[in-house]
Amino acid sequence: MKNRFVIENSFFGKYQNLVRKKMIPYQRKVLDDAVPGVEKSHAIENFRIAAGLSEGEHYGWVFQDSDLGKWIEAASYSLMLEPDPELEADMDALIEIIGKAQMEDGYLDTYFIIGRQDKRWTNLQEAHELYCTGHMLEAAVAHYEATGKTSLLDIMEKNVEHIINTFGKDKKRGFPGHPEIELALVRLYKLTGKEKYLELVKYFVDERGTEPNFFEAESKERGWTVWRSNALDQKYTQNHAPVREQKDAVGHAVRAVYLYTGMAGVAMETGDKTLIDACHTLWKSITRKRMFVTGGIGSVDNGEAFSADYDLNNDTAYSESCAAIGLIFFAKKMLEMEKKSEYADVMERALYNTVLGGMSLDGKNFFYVNPLEVNPEYAGKVMNYLHVEPVRPSWFGCACCPPNIARMLTSLNRYVFDETEDTLYNHLFIGGELDLADGASLEVKTGYPYDGNIVYTFNGDYNRNLAVRIPDWSKSFRIELNGVEIKPEIVDGYAVIKAPFAAGDEVKLILDMTPRKIYPNVLIRDDEGAVAVQRGPFVYCLEGVDNDGELRNIRIPKNAEIKVLDFEPETLEGIVPLEVDGVRLTSSESLYSYDSRPTETAVKLRMIPYYAWANRGVNQMQVWTKEI
Amino acid sequence: MKNRFVIENSFFGKYQNLVRKKMIPYQRKVLDDAVPGVEKSHAIENFRIAAGLSEGEHYGWVFQDSDLGKWIEAASYSLMLEPDPELEADMDALIEIIGKAQMEDGYLDTYFIIGRQDKRWTNLQEAHELYCTGHMLEAAVAHYEATGKTSLLDIMEKNVEHIINTFGKDKKRGFPGHPEIELALVRLYKLTGKEKYLELVKYFVDERGTEPNFFEAESKERGWTVWRSNALDQKYTQNHAPVREQKDAVGHAVRAVYLYTGMAGVAMETGDKTLIDACHTLWKSITRKRMFVTGGIGSVDNGEAFSADYDLNNDTAYSESCAAIGLIFFAKKMLEMEKKSEYADVMERALYNTVLGGMSLDGKNFFYVNPLEVNPEYAGKVMNYLHVEPVRPSWFGCACCPPNIARMLTSLNRYVFDETEDTLYNHLFIGGELDLADGASLEVKTGYPYDGNIVYTFNGDYNRNLAVRIPDWSKSFRIELNGVEIKPEIVDGYAVIKAPFAAGDEVKLILDMTPRKIYPNVLIRDDEGAVAVQRGPFVYCLEGVDNDGELRNIRIPKNAEIKVLDFEPETLEGIVPLEVDGVRLTSSESLYSYDSRPTETAVKLRMIPYYAWANRGVNQMQVWTKEI
Repeated sequence: MKNRFVIENSFFGKYQNLVRKKMIPYQRKVLDDAVPGVEKSHAIENFRIAAGLSEGEHYGWVFQDSDLGKWIEAASYSLMLEPDPELEADMDALIEIIGKAQMEDGYLDTYFIIGRQDKRWTNLQEAHELYCTGHMLEAAVAHYEATGKTSLLDIMEKNVEHIINTFGKDKKRGFPGHPEIELALVRLYKLTGKEKYLELVKYFVDERGTEPNFFEAESKERGWTVWRSNALDQKYTQNHAPVREQKDAVGHAVRAVYLYTGMAGVAMETGDKTLIDACHTLWKSITRKRMFVTGGIGSVDNGEAFSADYDLNNDTAYSESCAAIGLIFFAKKMLEMEKKSEYADVMERALYNTVLGGMSLDGKNFFYVNPLEVNPEYAGKVMNYLHVEPVRPSWFGCACCPPNIARMLTSLNRYVFDETEDTLYNHLFIGGELDLADGASLEVKTGYPYDGNIVYTFNGDYNRNLAVRIPDWSKSFRIELNGVEIKPEIVDGYAVIKAPFAAGDEVKLILDMTPRKIYPNVLIRDDEGAVAVQRGPFVYCLEGVDNDGELRNIRIPKNAEIKVLDFEPETLEGIVPLEVDGVRLTSSESLYSYDSRPTETAVKLRMIPYYAWANRGVNQMQVWTKEI
Repeated sequence: MKNRFVIENSFFGKYQNLVRKKMIPYQRKVLDDAVPGVEKSHAIENFRIAAGLSEGEHYGWVFQDSDLGKWIEAASYSLMLEPDPELEADMDALIEIIGKAQMEDGYLDTYFIIGRQDKRWTNLQEAHELYCTGHMLEAAVAHYEATGKTSLLDIMEKNVEHIINTFGKDKKRGFPGHPEIELALVRLYKLTGKEKYLELVKYFVDERGTEPNFFEAESKERGWTVWRSNALDQKYTQNHAPVREQKDAVGHAVRAVYLYTGMAGVAMETGDKTLIDACHTLWKSITRKRMFVTGGIGSVDNGEAFSADYDLNNDTAYSESCAAIGLIFFAKKMLEMEKKSEYADVMERALYNTVLGGMSLDGKNFFYVNPLEVNPEYAGKVMNYLHVEPVRPSWFGCACCPPNIARMLTSLNRYVFDETEDTLYNHLFIGGELDLADGASLEVKTGYPYDGNIVYTFNGDYNRNLAVRIPDWSKSFRIELNGVEIKPEIVDGYAVIKAPFAAGDEVKLILDMTPRKIYPNVLIRDDEGAVAVQRGPFVYCLEGVDNDGELRNIRIPKNAEIKVLDFEPETLEGIVPLEVDGVRLTSSESLYSYDSRPTETAVKLRMIPYYAWANRGVNQMQVWTKEI
């Protein structure tokens, strides 16, 4: 997809502005320890020390370098959205430092360059060297795409060359404890066309999970540890079986979906059928058995990990923001490979709910953990809920999620369209303008996600089909071509409107935004007897502030109608609330009562989109409500 | 209560025989490391080494001595049930070893006597010295009561004398990290009438939770640790506030109820109103907000602890067998103080459900953890369920629960009646014969817990009232005196049949055993929309083996009738199963479905008493089932 798509200043345009104007400058300062009261990052200072420009010790996590990588990547996307010479110059200066920090042989990881050079590449399980390379590599590709400059790309190609010289079949054995480099190498390969990069990913992907167990062997030899990880906990690092034999999505959820994205990338570039099958298997494991209705993944905090089929506890969920982003990466790769709407459906679900929910509306506070139900009496206080925050904290010592959200939102335009030889696919409904060949363009106008009308206008002739996604949540739809209803063929969830299009042609897609009740699979223990509500891409929730505080005793009658209220532009930066005729139960004060069912009182329930919760102070929230 | 009550060979008689004939001999061998394949206990060998009769190091937990104490206590009760000269001689021999192990100054704890004498009394928070004293003290009292011998009592009075000389207002400051000695000292006081024992308990109770924090001070001074406990986690040890200011039942559940039992004992002996109030407050905290319907307590495995109000997750519950036993101790003390049926109701609930459930029907296997819902796909495998066992293991390295169950069941006759100056109270409905004054006796005949008819026959004249408990679960009841219905006054849950009674007088209590549906308080998040079923004292459950394996998709219709099936003497050692017209739901295979509620199929559900579950292999179980 080389066509440039510019997102208009609507729903996501506002988010992009927030990221560009607030988050990126703020994060830049945090990385340089220039925000009073915020925990020291030291990420930039580590590079300065490694470069000999400053003195001191390495400070921060073993993966601290990746924070700078993610920031450069996000800033590069930001440049693509709108030129910013000052930002670009700042990045040049940072890249110069990175270059100076790099060792003669191409090695680049400040945790080891500063005082631990003898330990380089001795602890792939824990030490995140290849993970950091992956992020800086993604930054290099984005920086080149944004500026045409090869400064960071040169550094990182030299770094990858060093890795190629180090690891491989007849060299040192190894693969990353935390996948990321796989998907980054696929990007580098696609940019440069150099086969050696694809070979390196293939090596990492194929070697993983093979016998003898590499992490175990490594841990016996190295004599040091970062955080006493159990080398025998193979599932945590998806090292329990060769990737083609892995049946379930297991272990650390971010690692898992980063790995699967890399696998899908290799599968797509090589056409390797066995790898494609493995991707299908793992995709199904996630989306059929291990995904929250918000598109969040990772059921348990210990290990930030997948757990077991249908183990989807709403209030103890981990559902890390980064994992939802990784799921979007995976979905996008699958979508590049196969134009099936289920991938885009999941992408949209994760984006509009968990990713957006990961950030406060003012862009200043962030959730790592995105449970579907929170009771502040328990969150952060009671065992099993200690990882749950009832409001978004301002920044994290482990800063993975905020910059990941930043790069996701600034690069969102890359997720909207895909063009194949004969068809232009529209996956996400976002207003803006898409460049087409020969000076033509496609204008998208829409009130989405508030309404379901999307109008595509061709400026110039276009000779391929236009395939628009029919989302799984839209019960019906209508398509018009120049004002006349048409009935295009639906192929794998896309309505394919046949080419050619002439300048001025207008396609109108009208989706059904009627709220839908969602029923869970009966094997999800935690959702037994409950219902969730979705309108368009938004999963809705009850929040205490709208509903007299207490949510546990609220029920939704089986026949309850859901009323769509008017758009409220001033509420939570603009939402369409829902109103449900609900019931509030009252029981006696005793813990258990014989025979007497609680009494029911009719109440009007107000629901808001899940992503917008926790912007009005500490209170209860829940997505799933029991029916009565 | 000095009247001897002999339990007949019915429901509990069989349990007592099991404990006497199987558990006690088996445990004796385990404590002496004489059962091949069972983890070494070393409890007796530790005493031999301390006594200079054997050589070696201390082995086992810091509280290993208490295992022997609990065994001697249980064996003493066993002697009271039926003389056993061989067992008595064996106990004499063991007591001789204990006596030799005791130090000159009265100190007695093998963990410290063997090689750690310089560390005596330096780590009350962690080292369980006073806890072990408590258990051996209970053993000494029971041994004296059973045999009239003072051998162990002398040892333990000398030990307590040493403790009195060590701790107190003008001596060393201190109180136990794990309460137990408090309730034991009350027993010793009641046996001997010596005020100094009551003074010592009062000191321990009053000092607890006062400033400056004792455990913190101690941890700073001592320079060693047993298991790196956090001295600042005051709630775990109920050291967060003076006991009279404690508002919620918190921390390690066994410690909590042992403490409260000691507090109630002191309150009763002293009439201290402020302490009685504290007992009421903590009793209410447990039974109104923090107790499972099975009488289990302790919601979370981390810390084996209470958590927060209404945090009663069925499948991650800890609900330790020992904690239920401790709750019975607490209830019994409250009942001695105040004749209110709610204490006996809770006692019965914990006994018939969690305590009995803690043991397999053959007396060989034991649960520590008694959740109300188990899915073997998760239990012991998935994070947050790692503490859950889907079947009872045979024995434990930490052996607290099995001997606790043994002493509970062998001393059960002490929980059945209480006699005051003017009234004989019957708390539990167990067949047998109670000695009354002047050669009279009361015979109790009942088919309980299978049926609800209890017949009391006086053999000889009796000049006090007979107060029989009307259980909370019995919707109606009928009382007959010599075949004629009477309507006695109900006082605090007891039907008081007025004295006098003549020889041959027969009182018949007919309780209503109609199954009751139990509805949870609407603030219990995990029970939302669910119902439980109870018949008589038994909480019922669904077990997979009776219900086609899968329970998550089972629902009970709101109007469902519960049919009482015939008594099955051969099933699970004799049960009365229930049959419910239920529903099984089928949803599509997808994780979430729009608008379409799962389809319903009528099924006959078979329910069995909770205590009897997990005696037929690995399968699902649940107490609470969602209504539909």
